[in-house]
Amino acid sequence: MGRCLGLSRLKLPPKDRRNQVTYIPPHFREISPDTIGEIIASAPLACIVVQTDEGLIANHIPLLLGPDGSLIGHIALANDMHRLIAEGSEVLAIFRGEDGYISPNFYPSKAEHHRHVPTWNYQVVHVYGDIGFQHDERTKRAAVGLLTREHERRLNGKDAWRMADAPPDYIERQLGDIVAFRITVTRTLAKSKLSQNREERDYLGTISGLRATGRSALAERLEKRWHNAG
Amino acid sequence: MGRCLGLSRLKLPPKDRRNQVTYIPPHFREISPDTIGEIIASAPLACIVVQTDEGLIANHIPLLLGPDGSLIGHIALANDMHRLIAEGSEVLAIFRGEDGYISPNFYPSKAEHHRHVPTWNYQVVHVYGDIGFQHDERTKRAAVGLLTREHERRLNGKDAWRMADAPPDYIERQLGDIVAFRITVTRTLAKSKLSQNREERDYLGTISGLRATGRSALAERLEKRWHNAG
Repeated sequence: MGRCLGLSRLKLPPKDRRNQVTYIPPHFREISPDTIGEIIASAPLACIVVQTDEGLIANHIPLLLGPDGSLIGHIALANDMHRLIAEGSEVLAIFRGEDGYISPNFYPSKAEHHRHVPTWNYQVVHVYGDIGFQHDERTKRAAVGLLTREHERRLNGKDAWRMADAPPDYIERQLGDIVAFRITVTRTLAKSKLSQNREERDYLGTISGLRATGRSALAERLEKRWHNAG
Repeated sequence: MGRCLGLSRLKLPPKDRRNQVTYIPPHFREISPDTIGEIIASAPLACIVVQTDEGLIANHIPLLLGPDGSLIGHIALANDMHRLIAEGSEVLAIFRGEDGYISPNFYPSKAEHHRHVPTWNYQVVHVYGDIGFQHDERTKRAAVGLLTREHERRLNGKDAWRMADAPPDYIERQLGDIVAFRITVTRTLAKSKLSQNREERDYLGTISGLRATGRSALAERLEKRWHNAG
């Protein structure tokens, strides 16, 4: 899979950076390329943030991890992002997986010693990289094609909508209204804060508690980690 | 409700800013204080971003909109954020609501003219404001108390966990390990990209399509907008 190829180039940094641009205690640091790829694939709407003379700008754009390890996307031509950011600028693409409030009530050990406080579980991937914009139709068509295939295959399987289903002149006009871009990854920071610092009964209690309160998707993330670790 | 009081101070900017720090076409601009409050309340885990000498830093922190319109939260004392950011610096707090891929297959009108391409729906609130940190126990206890009450009430109702359930010395030590903060809002940008630019049958088709593909929470956002507009 192209995704796996790309992941080996995601460039996880050494653990001893003195100042942390994202607070990640060692037990919450996510270093599994598979898990990082899953977070990106399951929550592809990244928030792209960059500092400019106009202040911090932030746009939410679906991204795809390309076979060469770069992130691929496109924005509206009307989106000032490609005018405000100089070619090659460093941007931060933030991917946010499942998240949810964790109540001390989830922990069976609470009844014994009551030494618990609430917390929040979540998975995030922060990808720093240099952005370049492409205005030629061939690159734009390729970017749209890759994203469309990925999401249509996942959602509609054999009934996938294809660009060729639409009239060529219509697609051409749509391509004229967008700008493609590619983010060349310089470093990746990822965090899985999934109660893995809890004792077994409390970890399992958290899974049950999340399920009981309608947070099944987050419960599944904990469950998967449990099975992988066991 | 405190939330409503606070919202009147969220300071929506004029529509004619020349350069957009977030691309928001007029038909996707969210100006309803109720909707903005709902997005913040339903997706309280904000990503707080700020430019520092170390580069862009980003941390995911649950926030609460206080009665005075400021955002209230706390971080671990070990989190470098409060050391890297000067008191009063402008930060961006990004709240992300539901999101999902929208296939042209969702639109009944596709069968007629095939003039459709995929898109992505989502709701986001970007709050810019000046951050101040508090290290005194009284403020920290108040911040933790407000957040705990909000989430426990929602999740556990009459079985809500309370700080008083834990031993006082334990809570005291926990409070020693955190720093409280408050973001005084300077401006708020919000976007509801919910297919509201589609004709009626395609809008309703999108709601059905999202439900059929397991995106009920996003479908509900479209449905609610439909009922409010009708």
